[in-house]
Amino acid sequence: MRAFEIKGNFGLENLVAVERPKPEPGPQEILIKVNAVSLNYRDLLTIQGLYNPKQKLPLIPLSDGAGEVVGIGEQVDRVKVGDRVMPIFAQRWLSGEPTREKLKTTLGGPLDGVLAEYVVLHQDGVVHTPEHLSDIEAAALPCAAVTAWHALVGERPLLPGEVVLVQGTGGVSIFALQFAKILGARVIVTSSRDEKLEKVEAMGADALINYKRTPDWAKAARALTDGVGVDHVIEVGGAGTLNQSLRAVRMGGHISVIGVLAGVAQEVNVIPILMQNLRLQGVIVGHREHFESMNRMISLHRLRPSIDRVFPVDEVEEAFSWMAQGSHFGKICLTF
Amino acid sequence: MRAFEIKGNFGLENLVAVERPKPEPGPQEILIKVNAVSLNYRDLLTIQGLYNPKQKLPLIPLSDGAGEVVGIGEQVDRVKVGDRVMPIFAQRWLSGEPTREKLKTTLGGPLDGVLAEYVVLHQDGVVHTPEHLSDIEAAALPCAAVTAWHALVGERPLLPGEVVLVQGTGGVSIFALQFAKILGARVIVTSSRDEKLEKVEAMGADALINYKRTPDWAKAARALTDGVGVDHVIEVGGAGTLNQSLRAVRMGGHISVIGVLAGVAQEVNVIPILMQNLRLQGVIVGHREHFESMNRMISLHRLRPSIDRVFPVDEVEEAFSWMAQGSHFGKICLTF
Amino acid sequence: MRAFEIKGNFGLENLVAVERPKPEPGPQEILIKVNAVSLNYRDLLTIQGLYNPKQKLPLIPLSDGAGEVVGIGEQVDRVKVGDRVMPIFAQRWLSGEPTREKLKTTLGGPLDGVLAEYVVLHQDGVVHTPEHLSDIEAAALPCAAVTAWHALVGERPLLPGEVVLVQGTGGVSIFALQFAKILGARVIVTSSRDEKLEKVEAMGADALINYKRTPDWAKAARALTDGVGVDHVIEVGGAGTLNQSLRAVRMGGHISVIGVLAGVAQEVNVIPILMQNLRLQGVIVGHREHFESMNRMISLHRLRPSIDRVFPVDEVEEAFSWMAQGSHFGKICLTF
Amino acid sequence: MRAFEIKGNFGLENLVAVERPKPEPGPQEILIKVNAVSLNYRDLLTIQGLYNPKQKLPLIPLSDGAGEVVGIGEQVDRVKVGDRVMPIFAQRWLSGEPTREKLKTTLGGPLDGVLAEYVVLHQDGVVHTPEHLSDIEAAALPCAAVTAWHALVGERPLLPGEVVLVQGTGGVSIFALQFAKILGARVIVTSSRDEKLEKVEAMGADALINYKRTPDWAKAARALTDGVGVDHVIEVGGAGTLNQSLRAVRMGGHISVIGVLAGVAQEVNVIPILMQNLRLQGVIVGHREHFESMNRMISLHRLRPSIDRVFPVDEVEEAFSWMAQGSHFGKICLTF
Repeated sequence: MRAFEIKGNFGLENLVAVERPKPEPGPQEILIKVNAVSLNYRDLLTIQGLYNPKQKLPLIPLSDGAGEVVGIGEQVDRVKVGDRVMPIFAQRWLSGEPTREKLKTTLGGPLDGVLAEYVVLHQDGVVHTPEHLSDIEAAALPCAAVTAWHALVGERPLLPGEVVLVQGTGGVSIFALQFAKILGARVIVTSSRDEKLEKVEAMGADALINYKRTPDWAKAARALTDGVGVDHVIEVGGAGTLNQSLRAVRMGGHISVIGVLAGVAQEVNVIPILMQNLRLQGVIVGHREHFESMNRMISLHRLRPSIDRVFPVDEVEEAFSWMAQGSHFGKICLTF
Repeated sequence: MRAFEIKGNFGLENLVAVERPKPEPGPQEILIKVNAVSLNYRDLLTIQGLYNPKQKLPLIPLSDGAGEVVGIGEQVDRVKVGDRVMPIFAQRWLSGEPTREKLKTTLGGPLDGVLAEYVVLHQDGVVHTPEHLSDIEAAALPCAAVTAWHALVGERPLLPGEVVLVQGTGGVSIFALQFAKILGARVIVTSSRDEKLEKVEAMGADALINYKRTPDWAKAARALTDGVGVDHVIEVGGAGTLNQSLRAVRMGGHISVIGVLAGVAQEVNVIPILMQNLRLQGVIVGHREHFESMNRMISLHRLRPSIDRVFPVDEVEEAFSWMAQGSHFGKICLTF
Repeated sequence: MRAFEIKGNFGLENLVAVERPKPEPGPQEILIKVNAVSLNYRDLLTIQGLYNPKQKLPLIPLSDGAGEVVGIGEQVDRVKVGDRVMPIFAQRWLSGEPTREKLKTTLGGPLDGVLAEYVVLHQDGVVHTPEHLSDIEAAALPCAAVTAWHALVGERPLLPGEVVLVQGTGGVSIFALQFAKILGARVIVTSSRDEKLEKVEAMGADALINYKRTPDWAKAARALTDGVGVDHVIEVGGAGTLNQSLRAVRMGGHISVIGVLAGVAQEVNVIPILMQNLRLQGVIVGHREHFESMNRMISLHRLRPSIDRVFPVDEVEEAFSWMAQGSHFGKICLTF
Repeated sequence: MRAFEIKGNFGLENLVAVERPKPEPGPQEILIKVNAVSLNYRDLLTIQGLYNPKQKLPLIPLSDGAGEVVGIGEQVDRVKVGDRVMPIFAQRWLSGEPTREKLKTTLGGPLDGVLAEYVVLHQDGVVHTPEHLSDIEAAALPCAAVTAWHALVGERPLLPGEVVLVQGTGGVSIFALQFAKILGARVIVTSSRDEKLEKVEAMGADALINYKRTPDWAKAARALTDGVGVDHVIEVGGAGTLNQSLRAVRMGGHISVIGVLAGVAQEVNVIPILMQNLRLQGVIVGHREHFESMNRMISLHRLRPSIDRVFPVDEVEEAFSWMAQGSHFGKICLTF
């Protein structure tokens, strides 16, 4: 079967097509024909060797995909041949609190990922695909959508009438916007580009801030909430934006810290955390029960992910270049 | 009556004894004879003008005290003359989430505090003193103890068998040690002085780290937990220590951000928050229901606060100098 | 001013118009011109002497109303003259857990209620009226809507994609339907009348069960959820229906026990509670912060209560008769 | 190997020793040498055919045991040969909310249990035994102790200073007493026998009620809490006692509904649930993470279960007769 490996050294140029034997499912394992995959910024960092310096090569990258069960091993009772499924990010994080044991089983590093025609996974490591979604749409969900869902409802559920500020228009942010609207919240979105703000407005965003024109977007967000501050910030920009998030949020408010950040260690003013009784909650994707409850919501509302572009799998390098350029809106997918 | 005011300008030298008319309780208000007060680092900063630059003068400082109800206004039904009471820090934060409206009613700035023979407070702004405590002991509770209680049980209750790391031996930290032991947890305490570590060991601390001799105390804490990391950190040192706390805590763990910090904006590595799914929770004292549930616990266990030294009220300046010196262990109190 | 009292004895015939002196607001109190009130089944029971046998007479009944602040006492800072406000049910339950002390301050018994031209309340005992609502609409909110909101989000927030079963079409139930839709849930409604089911369908109900035609509605509800059971039941019918609710709910599910029940002590099969790890949560209206967060939601979504009929205040007896008859849909209001 | 089966028909007389082939661990499975087991009332009902009428025979009964890993299959990484382990009650309930899928994997029915020299389980279906416990002591934990722990901390953690009422002196109740003391709570225990009350007093119970002499024990419990009511009731008696529990608990309090009850459907007065905003929470044992966090607590406090009597495994019938007689205090164990 065909697969793509990071081979020899890190670097996009070392992501090459290879022929591997088609895997066989053992007991409690299933064989999946992968029909579509999607890219996350984490995958790019992994390929560049920036995500986990201890990662061993060769590695099949990518954690997110969707496909069909085409074979099952013994003792499989959760899925059957013909089922449409998506893998979960951390194969052993089914529910409960995250632990190192659970989190070391993530696809696309350290474990081989889904950029291959076929993958074998434990039957516990997948969820069923909502019926109304194509495999391309489904491939967009495993990391970005589950992260957004976990952030909004996993720790302290966002309530209707509350105000959430979503930074930017990346994968997690667009899902956060869509989910927050279904949760009945008011959503403020920031972006540096008006054409993206127009798009999120069309998707239901209640208020827009162009942070190029309004660099003090925290102040603008407070003004939009009568000076009170927002209830929840989806913080994807890292330390560079964190100080503004700390000022944008209300006393007692919640900041979801998400995303693989370019600039890492920065000056952070800790005082507002203390004096405003704030909560900063790191969000590292989510567990299978998050994914399943999200799918129920997606199915009920027949929600569709925002797909930016679909490339054939052979153009995986172009797809990553497109991502690196940063002008996409929504998810970038590949099809086999 | 006698009171002490910050008068004219900020600075310990401007904290002077004055004669004020004895206040009268209006409807729903009570008159308290203050018998003892205690110092918090916040009070020192307030006097120095470093806490709230907009604070108006003159101001009677100090939020923490204990005394007896000696008069009541009309419509008072929560307390009666003769009751022993302590004021709550934020007079209108009775329960629920903190809001700016509730938090602007803190004693010792912006509102006049308790460094006076008599104070008048709304009947809602006090709690009853546990019977087994003297007023000197009770005066130690309103900020430091409630902060420790709120941190340990207010957001995500610490469970028996869990491991909490308490930084240092200041007021909040000693209470956190005492409460965590009653909660059935395992407690690690850090300090720069062996004589203080001996004292906390005598109070029940399960493991001790002298961070002078073991500067990488996060690593030591991890080693004490078989490499897993602690469940909860009582972070009082601010940004200087926060990076170590981020490394000391387990995946999915909890850091209570507490205390008025000397160094404010520092380099903080945000990555562990995200990648370890950590929670940083600011803790700004607590509400009246926190105080009341804490008192139930204190009464049942006949717990006694650790009092470092008691000064007569006229030596308030010496008391603050003693605090500034930093070699105290437990609370510094004054008596009228 | 004009008011209505239960005078001498209990019974609707003893609810009489009286002339009382217009009250004056004391310190921290406000004078409200009542423009509209609404009826709850609790009010009918109170008038009949069935709610609280120890209730003293005379009593001005009714807890729910809306009006305008026309006077304020000293020290009032939460509201001002001209503000449109609604009273909260338990005047001292502002937030936090319910206590007997907080719950003994309910309007319309034991305290005088709002069936009067003017009422004086403590400034803490009101919330602001959402702008887009008339006073008649606002009068519908204080008990029924807050109960529904508390039930759905106060203990364990209902999540989008979850399934809630709402019994009947009384005041609480209609609000629960409206709120559950805004929460993104799937809603099943039961009723004995098709014309009412048609109305709730028009309001967004996803599935309908006529329990006259389908007496085993629990089984029908399970069938609608692929045999899993619903996530949450709004149980208003009391012990008569509780056994079915216990069968309709999924393992680990939640039943909100609400409403003043006709039949009280009945055979209840406790086994499912245990074996299915169910939660039964009693819901006695809610606190002021519930009311305020609900109003934010109502304002954002410009939600309007379902008003069945509006009577002039002089026809209060007819209004109660209409309620007793049980064919109303939504709230019954009175105007001054 | 030797095992005991319910064979042919239900009934204690049909529990017979049989010879079965020693099982072999498949992939991800482990072979355990069972050294001790303990009895639960559920096991007695199962043998009598009263627990699950659809149970197929033959069945090896009993869910609770302890032993040593003596063999492992492929892909086993959670345990190794020589480890001391205990099985978890529901083999697939590792964490998160209970579901029918998870709960149908309980040992001792429907799945074969541990009354056998050797059992093979999935590696996920065990936890490690605390070092300080013998296998006999460990065998007491899987159902009764995990149920008590789940009840006390799994839904709304009991706080130090709170009051819990524990009914009787059965397995769950004794564990609840021990754990509640470690949680820092005040514990009231009811029993019909003074000699049992003396024993629980020696174990730390703060207050005792002989419900034979004080049939209105709810009133006595209220009196012990200044009329407020207790915070939490461990309700093991079923519907017969539930009405008293409803009266013993404070407004807003919590009742854990536990235990396999003799009398099932009874008159229950639903009104207090509603009017007191009470929570009734069914507790069906607990998941593996409950078990693991409990073990941490047990290890830290070097807690020992209360063992009533130990029988050799051949006297299993006598052991059950002893249980049926009801005069035991703590757990009844068997050794191989």
